[in-house]
Amino acid sequence: MNGKTTPRVAIVGAGFGGLTAARALARAPAHITVIDRKNHHTFQPLLYQVATAGLSPGEIAAPIRSILRGRDNVEVLLGEVTGFDLARRLVETPGQKIPYDYLVVAAGASHAYFGHDDWEPLAPGLKTIEDALEIRRRILLAFELAERQAAAGESGFPLNFVVVGAGPTGVELAGTLAEISRHALLHEFRAIDPKSTQILLIEGGPRVLPTYPEELSSSAQEQLHRLGVEVRTSAMVTAVEPGAVHVGETRLAAAVILWAAGVAASPLGKTLGVPVDRAGRVAVEPDLSLPDHPEVFVIGDLAALKDESGKMLPGVAPVAIQQGRYVAKIIQREVEAATKAPAKGPIMPRPGFHYWDKGSLATIGRAAAVAKFGKIHISGFIAWLAWLFVHILFLIGFRNRLLVFIEWAWSYVTYERGARLITGSTQLPGWTDLRSQGSDVRDSAAEEIHAVSRK
Amino acid sequence: MNGKTTPRVAIVGAGFGGLTAARALARAPAHITVIDRKNHHTFQPLLYQVATAGLSPGEIAAPIRSILRGRDNVEVLLGEVTGFDLARRLVETPGQKIPYDYLVVAAGASHAYFGHDDWEPLAPGLKTIEDALEIRRRILLAFELAERQAAAGESGFPLNFVVVGAGPTGVELAGTLAEISRHALLHEFRAIDPKSTQILLIEGGPRVLPTYPEELSSSAQEQLHRLGVEVRTSAMVTAVEPGAVHVGETRLAAAVILWAAGVAASPLGKTLGVPVDRAGRVAVEPDLSLPDHPEVFVIGDLAALKDESGKMLPGVAPVAIQQGRYVAKIIQREVEAATKAPAKGPIMPRPGFHYWDKGSLATIGRAAAVAKFGKIHISGFIAWLAWLFVHILFLIGFRNRLLVFIEWAWSYVTYERGARLITGSTQLPGWTDLRSQGSDVRDSAAEEIHAVSRK
Repeated sequence: MNGKTTPRVAIVGAGFGGLTAARALARAPAHITVIDRKNHHTFQPLLYQVATAGLSPGEIAAPIRSILRGRDNVEVLLGEVTGFDLARRLVETPGQKIPYDYLVVAAGASHAYFGHDDWEPLAPGLKTIEDALEIRRRILLAFELAERQAAAGESGFPLNFVVVGAGPTGVELAGTLAEISRHALLHEFRAIDPKSTQILLIEGGPRVLPTYPEELSSSAQEQLHRLGVEVRTSAMVTAVEPGAVHVGETRLAAAVILWAAGVAASPLGKTLGVPVDRAGRVAVEPDLSLPDHPEVFVIGDLAALKDESGKMLPGVAPVAIQQGRYVAKIIQREVEAATKAPAKGPIMPRPGFHYWDKGSLATIGRAAAVAKFGKIHISGFIAWLAWLFVHILFLIGFRNRLLVFIEWAWSYVTYERGARLITGSTQLPGWTDLRSQGSDVRDSAAEEIHAVSRK
Repeated sequence: MNGKTTPRVAIVGAGFGGLTAARALARAPAHITVIDRKNHHTFQPLLYQVATAGLSPGEIAAPIRSILRGRDNVEVLLGEVTGFDLARRLVETPGQKIPYDYLVVAAGASHAYFGHDDWEPLAPGLKTIEDALEIRRRILLAFELAERQAAAGESGFPLNFVVVGAGPTGVELAGTLAEISRHALLHEFRAIDPKSTQILLIEGGPRVLPTYPEELSSSAQEQLHRLGVEVRTSAMVTAVEPGAVHVGETRLAAAVILWAAGVAASPLGKTLGVPVDRAGRVAVEPDLSLPDHPEVFVIGDLAALKDESGKMLPGVAPVAIQQGRYVAKIIQREVEAATKAPAKGPIMPRPGFHYWDKGSLATIGRAAAVAKFGKIHISGFIAWLAWLFVHILFLIGFRNRLLVFIEWAWSYVTYERGARLITGSTQLPGWTDLRSQGSDVRDSAAEEIHAVSRK
C-alpha cells in the first residue's frame, strides 16, 4: 500500500460496538483485526427469547467472520484477550501478541452479584448464548420435575420462579415466563397445572424499569400484573441458597432463580491503567480515548461517559453502535491523512462524541410493552408493535430476520414456543435429588451454602 | 372407565418406535405412560445436519409432551429407567416404580467403541442433540484454531478431519464436511485456505455403505471422491489419541476425529433376563414380545428379529415405526377385548411382525445421494431430491418442516450454513494448548492415552 506500512487497527470484542466499528472501517486504508472469545456475535436484546425457548440460538447469533465476510482488510481471530501493553502497543492473548496503531476496546459487560459471586450457579444471569441455554434448561426442567413428583403422588415441589431485578431484562423474563405457564404449556401436563406457576419479580428500587419515566413504570407494572407476575419493589435479596431465595427476612422456596440485577464491566477495563468507576467502567475522554493514549478508544458498556446534561450514558446497544461508528470515523480520517503526510498521533482536532437518543423500548410479553420516544410515551399493543419492528429490523443478517419473523408469527397464532429443548444435565440446584435421596440431603446442602452466602 | 381398572401401558423411550406406539394408542381404552430421559424426540436422520451447522437443534427436535399434547390418556415423564421388575410388572426409575399391564421397551441404541470406551471423548459419535453440538463445536473450532495459529506465523496445525465408519452417518458427515470446507467457509479466513482441508473416511469393510447394493456403494464412493473426500476401505483403526488416529501401522494427525463405526443397543436390554446378541439386542419372539412375557414388547434398535429370508432387520427408523404401530395394534385389540370379557394375558393369536421395506436412502452431500427402492437403484441428484422430500415429509411437526425447508432453500442458493455457533469450551483434545503450552505437553499426554488405548 503505497510502499508505506498499512496502519493496524485492533478491535477487542465483536458486540454491537466492536462490530459496528469493524464494518465502518471496511474501506479504510488499514488492516483491521477483530478479536473475540466467541466465534459469534450475539444479538443480546433477543437473548431472553432463547432463555424462554421462543427462539433458537442460531436465530439470534451469527458467526463474526460470516458477518464480516468479503471485507478483505478485516481479519477475525477467536481468542481471549488477557491484557494490553499500551507502551509497546500490543494486545495480549495467550498464544500471541497482536500489534496495533489504533486500539478499540469494546469488551462489554457481564452480570454483577455485588460481592456474592457464589450466588451465580444458583441464580444465573443472561449475557451469553450459554447463559440463555442454561436458563432455558432450568425453566423447562422445573416443570418436568414438578410433573414427575406430582405423578408419583408426592407434593412439595414449588412451581415458583423468582426473577431478581426489574430492569428491561428482568421484566422481559418475568413477563415471558408468565406467558409460557399460562399459554404455551397448557394441555401438556397431567399431574400439575402450569397455570398455578407463581412468578415473582423482585426489585430493590421503588419501581420497575427504573430508567424509564415513572408513568411508563406504572404501566409496565400494571401490564405485568395482568400477565400474572407478582411484583415486589423496594425488596432486597439478602441470600440465595439452592432452591430458595431470601427477601429481607423471608425465605421463599423457588424452583428457578434468575439474576437480572446488576451489571459489571469487563475486567479488561482495569488493565488499561486508568480509573474505573464502581461498575468497572473506564473513564474516557470526550472523544472516547484514554487520557494520554489518543490511539486507544474504549466504547460501549465498558466506557463511562456522561452526556451534556451530566447523566451517564446507558449500557444499551444504540450507544455502543453510535460509539463504534464515531471511533471508526476518527480512525479512518486520521489514517487517510497519514497516508498522505505521515505523522504520529492525532493531527486534527476531534469533536466530542454526542449520543443521539432515538428512544427506548422495553417489552413485557405478548402485545405488552412500553416505549419512550422523546416526550412521547406509549404502552401496550402499539409499543409492542414498535418493539417488534425495531428488533426484527436490526437483527443482524437477512436470513435470521426471516426465520425469527416466521417463529414469531407462528407463536403469536399458536402460543407455542419452538425451542423447548432440555439439553445437558437434568439436575436442578436444590431440587433434583429431592425425591431420590430424601429431603435431608438437600436441606443440609442448602444450609451449608446459605451459611457461606451470608456476609 | 366402566368401573373396571384402566389397563396401564408403559412405553420406555420416545424415539421413532416408542412415539409411534404412543400415538397409535391414543384412542385405546388404556392409560399410557411414556418415559424418556430427554424431554425431546430427536429426528435422528437429520442429526448430522446439526453436527455440521446446517440446522439448529430446535429444528430437528420437539418436546415429547408437545408432540403428544391433546391425547388425554397419555402421560409423559422425564426420567431415567434403571431396570424392570417383570414379575411384579414395574418399571424402575430412581424415584418411582411405574406399574404396567403392557410394557413396550424402545430404548434404542448408542455408539459402540468395541471395548475402547476411552476413545469416546477423543472421537465422539452422533446419537443425541448433545453429541451433535459437541461435534459442531469441534469442527468449527478446528478452523478457528488453524486460522489463529497460521495468523501467528506458526505452522503444524493439521486441518484434517477423520471420520471412522462409512455407514450412512459416516458418509453423510464426510460429505457435508467436504461441502463446508469447499463452499461455506470460502472468503471468511485470511491465513488459512479452508479448501485445503483433508477429509478422510475410514471403513473397516471392503466398501462404503455396506448394507447397500454394491453398485450403489461404488456410486457413493465416486460421489464422495468428487466432493473431495478421501475414502479408505478395508482399513482398521488400531488406536485413537488426542489429535491423532492410527490406521493399521500409520499414525495420522487429525484436528477432529468422528466415530460412526459401531452401534450398541441400550444396556436396558440386558436387564430383561433374556439372551442378547453381540450388539446387545434382545432376541424377541415373532410378535416382538419376550419369551414367557407376552405382555412385554421390545421394539426398534433394541430388538433382534430376522425377516423371512433370515436377514436381521436393520436399525433404521422405518423398522422402529412399523414395530411401534404393530405392538400398538396388538395392545389395543387385547385391551379392547379385555374391557368386554376380562381375561389375563393374550387371548387371541398374534400374527408375527412383518417388515415392509419401502426402500433406503443415503445422502452424501449437495445433490449427491443413493437410493434403493426394491430393484430400482438410483444415485445423484434425483436420489438426493427423493431423500430431501422423504425427510422433510417425515420431520415431526409442521412448524419444523417449514423452518427446515427455508434453511435448506437458503443454503442451497447461498451455500451458507445457518447454525455455525461454537458454544461451550474452546478446547480441542490434543490441539488447543499446542501453542500456549508447547508441544511437549501435548505429546506426553498423547503418549499416555495412546498407551492406555492399546490392548
